[in-house]
Amino acid sequence: MTDTTLTPSQVQAYLAEIFPQFDATITHIDRNGAVLELPTGEQHLRPGGTVSGPTLMALADAAMYVAVLGNIGKVALAVTTNLNINFYRKPEPGKLRAEARILKMGARLAVGDVLLYSEGIDQSVAHVTITYSIPPPAKAVE
Amino acid sequence: MTDTTLTPSQVQAYLAEIFPQFDATITHIDRNGAVLELPTGEQHLRPGGTVSGPTLMALADAAMYVAVLGNIGKVALAVTTNLNINFYRKPEPGKLRAEARILKMGARLAVGDVLLYSEGIDQSVAHVTITYSIPPPAKAVE
Amino acid sequence: MTDTTLTPSQVQAYLAEIFPQFDATITHIDRNGAVLELPTGEQHLRPGGTVSGPTLMALADAAMYVAVLGNIGKVALAVTTNLNINFYRKPEPGKLRAEARILKMGARLAVGDVLLYSEGIDQSVAHVTITYSIPPPAKAVE
Amino acid sequence: MTDTTLTPSQVQAYLAEIFPQFDATITHIDRNGAVLELPTGEQHLRPGGTVSGPTLMALADAAMYVAVLGNIGKVALAVTTNLNINFYRKPEPGKLRAEARILKMGARLAVGDVLLYSEGIDQSVAHVTITYSIPPPAKAVE
Repeated sequence: MTDTTLTPSQVQAYLAEIFPQFDATITHIDRNGAVLELPTGEQHLRPGGTVSGPTLMALADAAMYVAVLGNIGKVALAVTTNLNINFYRKPEPGKLRAEARILKMGARLAVGDVLLYSEGIDQSVAHVTITYSIPPPAKAVE
Repeated sequence: MTDTTLTPSQVQAYLAEIFPQFDATITHIDRNGAVLELPTGEQHLRPGGTVSGPTLMALADAAMYVAVLGNIGKVALAVTTNLNINFYRKPEPGKLRAEARILKMGARLAVGDVLLYSEGIDQSVAHVTITYSIPPPAKAVE
Repeated sequence: MTDTTLTPSQVQAYLAEIFPQFDATITHIDRNGAVLELPTGEQHLRPGGTVSGPTLMALADAAMYVAVLGNIGKVALAVTTNLNINFYRKPEPGKLRAEARILKMGARLAVGDVLLYSEGIDQSVAHVTITYSIPPPAKAVE
Repeated sequence: MTDTTLTPSQVQAYLAEIFPQFDATITHIDRNGAVLELPTGEQHLRPGGTVSGPTLMALADAAMYVAVLGNIGKVALAVTTNLNINFYRKPEPGKLRAEARILKMGARLAVGDVLLYSEGIDQSVAHVTITYSIPPPAKAVE
């Protein structure tokens, strides 16, 4: 477990390396959470012009992963064990924003929630709770 | 659907009438949420002295119901359709506090989340997301 | 971790000891799951004569706990970390039945789901997924 | 709402039209559920060679949508309101299979669950519960 002084750009570079499909921008990160943004394109849309559910879930999952990294440092092998999402407003094409908050950073499990926002809509469009399983210290990177 | 100027004591009295087992105290209520407190007793405890999961779930469910009443007025027939809870710290005997927040108050569904706190522990012990199904207006009370 | 040859009556007796509020009857138990029944009374009902959500959640949680005991033997300290319930039919007063199925029995986490049935209704009334955290072997009982 | 005699190939053709990114194959469909298969490629993998969580979530969501279509006929505007997933075994590269089961087909909400399987692993790798909101009849297609 490293000291947590990772900056958004450090985590961004780390993710580009281990997780090449990662296409969001980290705009904030601290011990309690992280904020990510994702400009949506054609590949994220559904019939009717709404952003697809999997796009929202993937962004929320990434935001929680970044929040975990921000809290405990680089842990490549943390894996999602549970994700629960409520979709309650229709997201519009345009930028998405995910605000992840850590509720508990345990030795074995990290629990947090994520609010998702869609450009042009003041209130959140979806809420996600996520649990990550943290590997034993021996498996931590560096 | 009545104008929402219900006070904690009005909702408390209403719940005492329609839902006699309700044993929590409403300490705050507004259009965006509600706060409830519950002093735990022997009947709420589990082996090891922790508060039982069902006690936490029941309190969270009640807090969201109160928050819905606070937002749309007396709706006796609103029913829970989904509840997801993560338990991540061990609650201690003593007072529990539930802080419910409405994320979306729709015509058919209300979505919110609840943070649960245990006396003597600064951070939350559990997080709950809840969806209520709202009956068509004809079924609203008064 | 004991060999798993626990019978319903052994688990019933064990639960009566460690968990005195337990009021359900175990009718079946094997390595893959368990079945519990609960006769509902006034204390389980809500306005309108339906069975309360917390009653369903408590029964499902107990059924999953029994299934875990059936699989790995007596583990007093297993704790629920996540519970997600969908309520989709109105349960009637009368006997409830919970059918728990283990989906994964891991070293650290057990995952399963539970279907809840209400006397007189053929189809299930609610579905629950539950994760239990399993304590390290040193904490196992006996 | 059409009579439900849709075949896998009819639903496959319908989805190709309204939802061009749909890349799974429908192998079975009836009033109670549906089975879909997805061959995974590089774009579905994560560091370490496992299939990404969003791939699993997207496949489960599609399987439930197909099951809803199989039950009530073509309803383009049904939307996911809640999805809860537990990931408990590591899926391998290769074909994924999703088995969706309808638990409740209501007038307003459809609830079901999905078991996900990974080629070469007998037991399921993830379990998903999903709620779809069904639009009022006027919005049904055809």
